[in-house]
Amino acid sequence: MAESDRVRTGIKGLDELIEGGLPSGFSFLLLGGPGTGKTTFGVQYLYKGATEFGENGMYVTFDEPPYSISNNSQRYGWNIPEQEKAGKIAFVDASPIKRQGATATFVPPTLQQNFLGSAKFSVESVLTEIKEVKNKVNAKRCVIDSISALMLQFRDDFEIRQQTLKLIKDLTEMDLTTIMLAENAEDRQEVTRFGAEAFLAQGVIVLHMYRVEESNVKALEVRKMRGAKHTDRLCPYRITSEGIEVYPEETVFRSV
Amino acid sequence: MAESDRVRTGIKGLDELIEGGLPSGFSFLLLGGPGTGKTTFGVQYLYKGATEFGENGMYVTFDEPPYSISNNSQRYGWNIPEQEKAGKIAFVDASPIKRQGATATFVPPTLQQNFLGSAKFSVESVLTEIKEVKNKVNAKRCVIDSISALMLQFRDDFEIRQQTLKLIKDLTEMDLTTIMLAENAEDRQEVTRFGAEAFLAQGVIVLHMYRVEESNVKALEVRKMRGAKHTDRLCPYRITSEGIEVYPEETVFRSV
Amino acid sequence: MAESDRVRTGIKGLDELIEGGLPSGFSFLLLGGPGTGKTTFGVQYLYKGATEFGENGMYVTFDEPPYSISNNSQRYGWNIPEQEKAGKIAFVDASPIKRQGATATFVPPTLQQNFLGSAKFSVESVLTEIKEVKNKVNAKRCVIDSISALMLQFRDDFEIRQQTLKLIKDLTEMDLTTIMLAENAEDRQEVTRFGAEAFLAQGVIVLHMYRVEESNVKALEVRKMRGAKHTDRLCPYRITSEGIEVYPEETVFRSV
Amino acid sequence: MAESDRVRTGIKGLDELIEGGLPSGFSFLLLGGPGTGKTTFGVQYLYKGATEFGENGMYVTFDEPPYSISNNSQRYGWNIPEQEKAGKIAFVDASPIKRQGATATFVPPTLQQNFLGSAKFSVESVLTEIKEVKNKVNAKRCVIDSISALMLQFRDDFEIRQQTLKLIKDLTEMDLTTIMLAENAEDRQEVTRFGAEAFLAQGVIVLHMYRVEESNVKALEVRKMRGAKHTDRLCPYRITSEGIEVYPEETVFRSV
Amino acid sequence: MAESDRVRTGIKGLDELIEGGLPSGFSFLLLGGPGTGKTTFGVQYLYKGATEFGENGMYVTFDEPPYSISNNSQRYGWNIPEQEKAGKIAFVDASPIKRQGATATFVPPTLQQNFLGSAKFSVESVLTEIKEVKNKVNAKRCVIDSISALMLQFRDDFEIRQQTLKLIKDLTEMDLTTIMLAENAEDRQEVTRFGAEAFLAQGVIVLHMYRVEESNVKALEVRKMRGAKHTDRLCPYRITSEGIEVYPEETVFRSV
Amino acid sequence: MAESDRVRTGIKGLDELIEGGLPSGFSFLLLGGPGTGKTTFGVQYLYKGATEFGENGMYVTFDEPPYSISNNSQRYGWNIPEQEKAGKIAFVDASPIKRQGATATFVPPTLQQNFLGSAKFSVESVLTEIKEVKNKVNAKRCVIDSISALMLQFRDDFEIRQQTLKLIKDLTEMDLTTIMLAENAEDRQEVTRFGAEAFLAQGVIVLHMYRVEESNVKALEVRKMRGAKHTDRLCPYRITSEGIEVYPEETVFRSV
Repeated sequence: MAESDRVRTGIKGLDELIEGGLPSGFSFLLLGGPGTGKTTFGVQYLYKGATEFGENGMYVTFDEPPYSISNNSQRYGWNIPEQEKAGKIAFVDASPIKRQGATATFVPPTLQQNFLGSAKFSVESVLTEIKEVKNKVNAKRCVIDSISALMLQFRDDFEIRQQTLKLIKDLTEMDLTTIMLAENAEDRQEVTRFGAEAFLAQGVIVLHMYRVEESNVKALEVRKMRGAKHTDRLCPYRITSEGIEVYPEETVFRSV
Repeated sequence: MAESDRVRTGIKGLDELIEGGLPSGFSFLLLGGPGTGKTTFGVQYLYKGATEFGENGMYVTFDEPPYSISNNSQRYGWNIPEQEKAGKIAFVDASPIKRQGATATFVPPTLQQNFLGSAKFSVESVLTEIKEVKNKVNAKRCVIDSISALMLQFRDDFEIRQQTLKLIKDLTEMDLTTIMLAENAEDRQEVTRFGAEAFLAQGVIVLHMYRVEESNVKALEVRKMRGAKHTDRLCPYRITSEGIEVYPEETVFRSV
Repeated sequence: MAESDRVRTGIKGLDELIEGGLPSGFSFLLLGGPGTGKTTFGVQYLYKGATEFGENGMYVTFDEPPYSISNNSQRYGWNIPEQEKAGKIAFVDASPIKRQGATATFVPPTLQQNFLGSAKFSVESVLTEIKEVKNKVNAKRCVIDSISALMLQFRDDFEIRQQTLKLIKDLTEMDLTTIMLAENAEDRQEVTRFGAEAFLAQGVIVLHMYRVEESNVKALEVRKMRGAKHTDRLCPYRITSEGIEVYPEETVFRSV
Repeated sequence: MAESDRVRTGIKGLDELIEGGLPSGFSFLLLGGPGTGKTTFGVQYLYKGATEFGENGMYVTFDEPPYSISNNSQRYGWNIPEQEKAGKIAFVDASPIKRQGATATFVPPTLQQNFLGSAKFSVESVLTEIKEVKNKVNAKRCVIDSISALMLQFRDDFEIRQQTLKLIKDLTEMDLTTIMLAENAEDRQEVTRFGAEAFLAQGVIVLHMYRVEESNVKALEVRKMRGAKHTDRLCPYRITSEGIEVYPEETVFRSV
Repeated sequence: MAESDRVRTGIKGLDELIEGGLPSGFSFLLLGGPGTGKTTFGVQYLYKGATEFGENGMYVTFDEPPYSISNNSQRYGWNIPEQEKAGKIAFVDASPIKRQGATATFVPPTLQQNFLGSAKFSVESVLTEIKEVKNKVNAKRCVIDSISALMLQFRDDFEIRQQTLKLIKDLTEMDLTTIMLAENAEDRQEVTRFGAEAFLAQGVIVLHMYRVEESNVKALEVRKMRGAKHTDRLCPYRITSEGIEVYPEETVFRSV
Repeated sequence: MAESDRVRTGIKGLDELIEGGLPSGFSFLLLGGPGTGKTTFGVQYLYKGATEFGENGMYVTFDEPPYSISNNSQRYGWNIPEQEKAGKIAFVDASPIKRQGATATFVPPTLQQNFLGSAKFSVESVLTEIKEVKNKVNAKRCVIDSISALMLQFRDDFEIRQQTLKLIKDLTEMDLTTIMLAENAEDRQEVTRFGAEAFLAQGVIVLHMYRVEESNVKALEVRKMRGAKHTDRLCPYRITSEGIEVYPEETVFRSV
């Protein structure tokens, strides 16, 4: 596969695990429990795309509102509003939470009534916004935060699976390279609830957090990556002041 | 993040685990089994807010009636009725249990018919009361006791999730810094039943109780705290005569 | 809390675990598997109340009929019919099983058609009887035998939770100090099925039975006791010829 | 309790575990996996009643047909047809399986259309037959084989519980001392599926079968016995050429 | 029990475990995971019946088509088509899979539209065929392959249980000695899903397969056998070039 | 069984485990978790069939689109488009994802509206396409990717089982030797969700992936293979630059 077919994640240490980056034009599932850094992973993917790899991106949120995501990113030295102003990163704000005047984020008027939890919410109309914003900023990268939030909106598993299928289908056909965040209620390695998403996705990356006595140890696993020869070792990662870093050379557990 | 963006919990030892306090203006989940001190945590958060940090607060109860909460707080030397009279703490009483003449608590007439279990109960009307009381006492802090109680009122999971979403959405938009109590039937670390709440919340704090031979050991875990660099170690805590105290320097389990 | 606010259980060794007795005027859950002595606990609470603490009581049964409860209590030297005649203990008999002429128990005519399993059964009408009997014997104490039996009568969990909520609400408002028995099918420590009851109740006491090789070891745990500083150690108990005795100074398991 | 209030089981070694016998006039649950000898236990209870204790009995079968039960009892030297002719034991045959001319068993015409699985089956009409047969043979003892079979007939758990409740209620009011057989699909100690039955019953006896390497070890446990001081040890039992024998003095597992 | 009441299985080593054979005229459950040899067991039972014990038999298949069963039996030297031509073995073909001209098997015209998965399928009409074929070949033995297949046809558990009940009832009344195959999805010892079948059946034989490191060890267990004194030890078995052989004298696991 | 009745898989090391190949004309289940190489297995089976064994094949995809499957196969040196042009391999493209102009794959017009997730999707119409394509390329081999995808399309288990039954029935009657891929959400050995498929299939091959410390170990198990004497040992396999290779002589786990 030519290098131009790879989308570099900007997560230090990750690209070398997957032959240089994510296969271009597909959707990938990022699965992790609370506190594993999924949102940080997503923002870093877009920020590095915009500032280092010349690829613009969009962040679609059904959960945390954009102003909060922007604020929390300052900790890593990522100035998201600056990138928004430069037209390199855009939010599609379907968060149920709006704070008046709190953000300069681009919020298409149609989404004003179209947030998660609203009776008017539909994946269809979110996709319409995604298409518009994609064209506006010429986005190559996309983050969906999160697949899990859809279960709030739909009553049964069948509906959730159908909507997820629709989302993946359309994002792939828009040629976006998408990372879909998904939250495990528990940090077990169970992907059960995301069975349908996990096999529809072109790849699955799992963020593990293991309790070892009183501390937590974090490890990233590339569970599946179609079209890429990938390691299947657990690799330790940490959330540093510069974002997420994976350490392919280190071991997760001490040898006994 | 500026220090002014932090809401100090008043729980000794906790604030230093989360960079000085809870990020202001969001909702947080406090999860624990029976006997872990959730109500004490909630009252302490409001009492310290009112008496030490100059921030008023409101206690919304769907469960234990206000007079009982007030009475039980005397054990820690917290004079809640005094704070109520001073207009610094207010109850929103949606408890199913009323005892005539037993409390001087502020009970808005609309809530007289609006308690949990009543056919007239709705999250909507509780929110109306919350807004009124918030304005009355100029509340910055809020405690919801408890998310779990909502499952008594609603028939299916979808409805419970939708109502919880609505609650979090509105509380955030009112700019309240809210602690939502949630009870695990079991003291396992399972957050399963609170999956939706856990990922909608800006942070999740878990109160653990481990049986070690014939005794119980208590430990607090900051499971998730968006926008705050937080420890992810288990920290022992105790319920002392002055309320809850966390001991970040101590270890939960003896080394073997 | 003043001592007068405490209701002494009459279970030897228990009151000292909970600062002198149960907080007055609330409902408590007593949870245990088959054979752990729940009925004995309930009868002892009423009998000791009537004969030692000058507080009358009522036993509401949805399960074992009163004549059988009375007969089985003779084993502990408790003469229940005598107390009934003296107007100190009364049964509210909603047991599905009636034996003609077998008991002199007070059975209000309205309950004749209102037993568990009957199409006319309702928590509402049982509560009406409870109120009447309460007034008749001036009851301060109440035993509900059992919360578990309600699941026989109602088709879905939602209904069971709503009816339990109603029961607790009304018993509290009648100012009765109530022990609600609840049966675990299994003697695991799972309180799952009683989640709603467990958090509505002011306190939860669990009777454990552990199989150790071929014998059983019994242990009482005060899982939760709002408004009382309580031990959270497992304490061994035995069913002696004088009823239930708890041994706070002993250990349940041998040290290894 | 007077000895006349006890019904001797005729199972060698069992009566001494429960103060001389089953409390008279109640229903008891006998719970065991396939191959634990439940049917043998039931037949032995009736046969010994008729031949040694002067108490007649009836065997109500929803499962194995009477001719098969009779045939299989010959192995223990119990001549059931002889007892039937003498009017000391009677079958109520609600088995779905009829073999023409294969048995001289008393089959009331009404039951001809009333077997398990038939559209005309109802607990009500079985109870009508039970009453008739009880009067005919003056039965004091009753065996129900089995509670588990009812789940074949009724669509939901609620219905099964209601019907079981009705059965226990009526059998108790007929003053029969009844053993209700119930089959665990698995020989785990789980009584879960029989939760309702287990707490409605006056007593619960469990037949365990433990696989120890390649053999099975059998043990009887008196899980609950209202109105009887009973052992709660596991006692080994065996199925010998003379029926079931319990060995209260032996241990189930070797000491290690 | 007279020896003439026994049906010899033709499985080497098995009959001696159950006092000479299966009790005549009843239905038995053979339970095993994929690859444990259930079909081989069933064919061997019929083939040995026809060639060694002078008892004809019928194979009722809802699953694998007859031509495939016949072909696969050649491996053991069993010439099934020869027995079909001799009128000693017959298939009732309710398999969903038909291959034109592939088999000389007797397929009654009524079954042409009556295969599993067809809208016209009913247990009733399969039973009609079974009766006809039974008369045609004077069958004493019957194999049902498989009970598990019925779950493909019926929507809910209640319906499956009712249909199974009907099947067992009619087969017993036809005086056939029937082995009903049932497949566990997993080779655990769980019989849960076959609870109803397991207690309706006169006997239950389980084929276990244990993974020991990288190999599988097979063991047969007679879980239940009404009317037969049977071993309850696990006995190793193997699938040899002459069919299934059980080794009652060997042990399954090495002693440690 | 004659060698001509065997279909050689082209997976190095596998055929010798199953007497030379898959029994011809049946459907087989290939079960594995994400990342175990199921798609590679399927493509290799077709590619080797076309290039080494003179048997053409068809790949039916409900999941990954053909262009992506083709691209990813280049890694193993398999030129799929070349085989398509030669009329030796054909895709039936029911993938929900279409990329305009991206592939020269044969897509029958009827399937344009008939992809998974579309309201017009039916197994029936996919089968119509399969028949057409089979005739066009004279296919002997077939791969279904995947059975798991059907659960996206159908609302309840009954429907999924019925549709799977229909698929297997028709593929068998077309005399295709089919490998049906099925994805376990988890890499446990649980085949539970595929119970119906597993017993309808003529054989079941499981691809295991065991986490051993920080690495994964892969092992292939032939769980069931009707009509073939097969090993039941776990055999290690690897995904090499030439596709999947099984190592029957090696052991999966080191001896301890």
